[in-house]
Amino acid sequence: MITGKNYIGCQLSASGDKTFKTFNPQENTDNSWQFTEASNEEIESAVTLASKAFLTFQKSTGKEKAFFLRTIADEILALGDNLLDVYCQESGLPRGRAEGERGRTIGQLNAFADLVEEGSWVEATIDTAIPDRVPLPKVDLRKMKRPLGTVVVFGSSNFPFAYSTAGGDTASALAAGCPVIVKSHPMHAGTGEMVASAVIKAAQKTNMPEGVFSNLNSSGIEVGVTLVKHPLVKAVGFTGSIKGGRSLYDLAGQREEPIPVFAEMGSINPVVLLPEALKQNAEKWAAACAGSVTLGAGQFCTNPGLMLGIKSDALKTFTEQLAVEILKISPSCMLNPSIYKNYQSNNELLSSQNGIEVVAEYAKTDNPNYASQKILTVSGKIFLENPVLHREVFGPFSILVQCEDEIELVAIIEKLEGQLTGSILAEENEIENYEEVVDALGNRVGRIIFNGLPTGVEVCPSMVHGGPYPSSSDSRFTAVGIGSIKRWVRPFSYQNWPNNKLPEALQNENPLGISRLVNNVQTRDSI
Amino acid sequence: MITGKNYIGCQLSASGDKTFKTFNPQENTDNSWQFTEASNEEIESAVTLASKAFLTFQKSTGKEKAFFLRTIADEILALGDNLLDVYCQESGLPRGRAEGERGRTIGQLNAFADLVEEGSWVEATIDTAIPDRVPLPKVDLRKMKRPLGTVVVFGSSNFPFAYSTAGGDTASALAAGCPVIVKSHPMHAGTGEMVASAVIKAAQKTNMPEGVFSNLNSSGIEVGVTLVKHPLVKAVGFTGSIKGGRSLYDLAGQREEPIPVFAEMGSINPVVLLPEALKQNAEKWAAACAGSVTLGAGQFCTNPGLMLGIKSDALKTFTEQLAVEILKISPSCMLNPSIYKNYQSNNELLSSQNGIEVVAEYAKTDNPNYASQKILTVSGKIFLENPVLHREVFGPFSILVQCEDEIELVAIIEKLEGQLTGSILAEENEIENYEEVVDALGNRVGRIIFNGLPTGVEVCPSMVHGGPYPSSSDSRFTAVGIGSIKRWVRPFSYQNWPNNKLPEALQNENPLGISRLVNNVQTRDSI
Repeated sequence: MITGKNYIGCQLSASGDKTFKTFNPQENTDNSWQFTEASNEEIESAVTLASKAFLTFQKSTGKEKAFFLRTIADEILALGDNLLDVYCQESGLPRGRAEGERGRTIGQLNAFADLVEEGSWVEATIDTAIPDRVPLPKVDLRKMKRPLGTVVVFGSSNFPFAYSTAGGDTASALAAGCPVIVKSHPMHAGTGEMVASAVIKAAQKTNMPEGVFSNLNSSGIEVGVTLVKHPLVKAVGFTGSIKGGRSLYDLAGQREEPIPVFAEMGSINPVVLLPEALKQNAEKWAAACAGSVTLGAGQFCTNPGLMLGIKSDALKTFTEQLAVEILKISPSCMLNPSIYKNYQSNNELLSSQNGIEVVAEYAKTDNPNYASQKILTVSGKIFLENPVLHREVFGPFSILVQCEDEIELVAIIEKLEGQLTGSILAEENEIENYEEVVDALGNRVGRIIFNGLPTGVEVCPSMVHGGPYPSSSDSRFTAVGIGSIKRWVRPFSYQNWPNNKLPEALQNENPLGISRLVNNVQTRDSI
Repeated sequence: MITGKNYIGCQLSASGDKTFKTFNPQENTDNSWQFTEASNEEIESAVTLASKAFLTFQKSTGKEKAFFLRTIADEILALGDNLLDVYCQESGLPRGRAEGERGRTIGQLNAFADLVEEGSWVEATIDTAIPDRVPLPKVDLRKMKRPLGTVVVFGSSNFPFAYSTAGGDTASALAAGCPVIVKSHPMHAGTGEMVASAVIKAAQKTNMPEGVFSNLNSSGIEVGVTLVKHPLVKAVGFTGSIKGGRSLYDLAGQREEPIPVFAEMGSINPVVLLPEALKQNAEKWAAACAGSVTLGAGQFCTNPGLMLGIKSDALKTFTEQLAVEILKISPSCMLNPSIYKNYQSNNELLSSQNGIEVVAEYAKTDNPNYASQKILTVSGKIFLENPVLHREVFGPFSILVQCEDEIELVAIIEKLEGQLTGSILAEENEIENYEEVVDALGNRVGRIIFNGLPTGVEVCPSMVHGGPYPSSSDSRFTAVGIGSIKRWVRPFSYQNWPNNKLPEALQNENPLGISRLVNNVQTRDSI
């Protein structure tokens, strides 16, 4: 059941007077539920509760946190088909996507449960004392990761499960030992409330402290701003637009005590088409690019919004094939009329720039929120000089840039803003001749892909989902994969601390059996 | 020989017209050398050269970087006694300290050489492909650390060797593969130039690219500001005051592309005196505190500027003993008249607050830049209410706070700003009864010390030198120890990349023999 209320810890609450509804883009109509935006008192309560919860939650064992995370996963599954229905009603995404994304969300929760249950993630590092060292004795020092405190998570529009209420940011922060306050995404507040109810149920079943999790409704920016400015909030996770992410980053930096903000923001994910690849496989790559550009109505942060080729007959063939392939695909529904509207206006802005030609554009359909895909093309020279063309158009849209030669190609890559991904389509050994291209691309992205398109983000230890600004606000971290837990922890040293008072991870006996660096040797042995 | 010029890469250059001299605080007179502040053209050249150098330097092997770092250490030693003379003339610090700090600097350079030569620090992580996975094939993903780009290092006033030109920030950034531009500290520009000459010589001997290192003179803030705002600069390391560090942090955050700033700033390093410890060992702890407060004229970032006790007869005895012990120690020379002047005015500011009593103050000596140590005391209630008393006084100074009870002690600790260290002096098993004190202190510091004073920072893998703001600008990193390399690198993923085109660290054969996480198992095996 959806109540439209906020979860302030385990209490449902709606003391505010601002209400809003979510929207069904497929039906082009409001959904029935009414949500009450969190009031200042509710925000204050959530933050105070979280701050108190931190004192005990930070001491939870890996096993306890794992139990909590796995129970969240179970409780989400226990919501059954009803949850999938609400997801579809609030996002316009198809049922298969809902199921797949739920699976990924469950998978993430369980992966973090495994990580903290095993325990070595704390990077325990021990240097034992040398009392008779000259000229000075060496003290005993032991280091491990420790959680930062309350984390505020801003749910994303395009992943109502995997990057929202109990998505990657929340799972990694809870795994780290940080209480989480979710600023629910207004487009899927009902999905958010249902998932929040699962987290709350899990917290209660596993005896987590009251306030370890709260879920706040919000249709504007006030709730988010108040949260980020609150002195008891210690870190922020955000997935969304550059404008939104940068605003939060700036707010956090202006606090008396600045706090880290990890914002995963815009990316146009350049795909470099090397000549031989197009010569051999123009049709194959055209079909692959068309599929990637239109996947999920182009509403992925890894959507390939930029294709870079060098002028040739093969590039001509590829362009023609791309026009054919992209028109074979039926348009699909966007998440919300506001996203559709932005798509239309950004699309028009870029289309109206000097020197732009249209490669293909799907005719407008009768369905109100369905995005017609579009491919533009432009010369390297014009692209290089017009930063408007470097902007992300969130939707099924891409620009094919025709470079004069490799030098211009490299110049373009070097001038790009930071990107989540960069792809190179090449024949066997072809990249040997394009070392400068590969080097330049590597310096602008977080993940580089050989003969593949950027859509599809594998959740595994070696994934990097982040990159130079503005694809993320801090390229030293990743939003996806177990490494994302490092955003919420800090190293902490104990000097000459009594063995039986140390956290188990640092005790001589190594009761957790974790892998540790002891006097420069990685080992699971006791001391 | 000291020329007073800047090193723009390997070129000595002095195109500007602003000059300054360093000062000998022991002699209370200017040193003879004249330094020319870097001009805007020189700054631009240094940054452009560094940016070009990055393209090749980032690909240097661990062995090559290790050779460079070890050669820097050798070249510093080759400067011999002359370097120590200049250090003493520019800092007023004694010869023994100069030698000790040189040893630490050499040690740091060699530790980073060992780290990158061994190679496992890149955290190579490999998930191999599963082509027949359903519903989707799993791609091959391989992750490792990659350098950020040009790093600007701001030398510190109080460590002319270990936290300046070729100190911890520079050593860690070069080890990471980042070119370094040092904004030399104006108080020891001659020491800086000599050490820079050693770095340049080493770069030439080991065939490092021109521009991998530059050293810029500066007496004001302009050079630093220009560097931090430069689009080609990618990260900043700073050791110094809260005011200076925060200014740079704010500047970096306001850039079109914000960049990370690691600033290690102020700390008053609270020392908690538990009752039983004072009852048993008031004299011992009084002598230890007196020594730590006055060490190096109190000019350490780990100086114990705050002592917290609970009212008792033992605390009275400790206070009386501290007064005796602190006056046994002869004052010593501060680094510079400006630092001496700041010490005097901050000391007077805190001394003039309501409710303050003087425990002991060494009489003013005739030596112009010698700081007389001072200990104040105040009630917990007054300390809690007056934030002026929480300020760092850089020098041989400390406040002893007399708390009513444990509750007040905890309240004070919770209200403190972030600190580099926190110490607890206790008898065996005494801390069992003070869990709240320990927990509260842990949440405010980067390193917690049992029965020891904070001065003395061991350089080893398990050291954390950093902490919650404002002791550092980002508690997720450390300034000391090999972990400090993580400030300058970002994770980077290769997807389906051809094995022979991967960096050696990620190739199937594991030619470097490093420890890697392969399909979730930590191993040195090949694939």
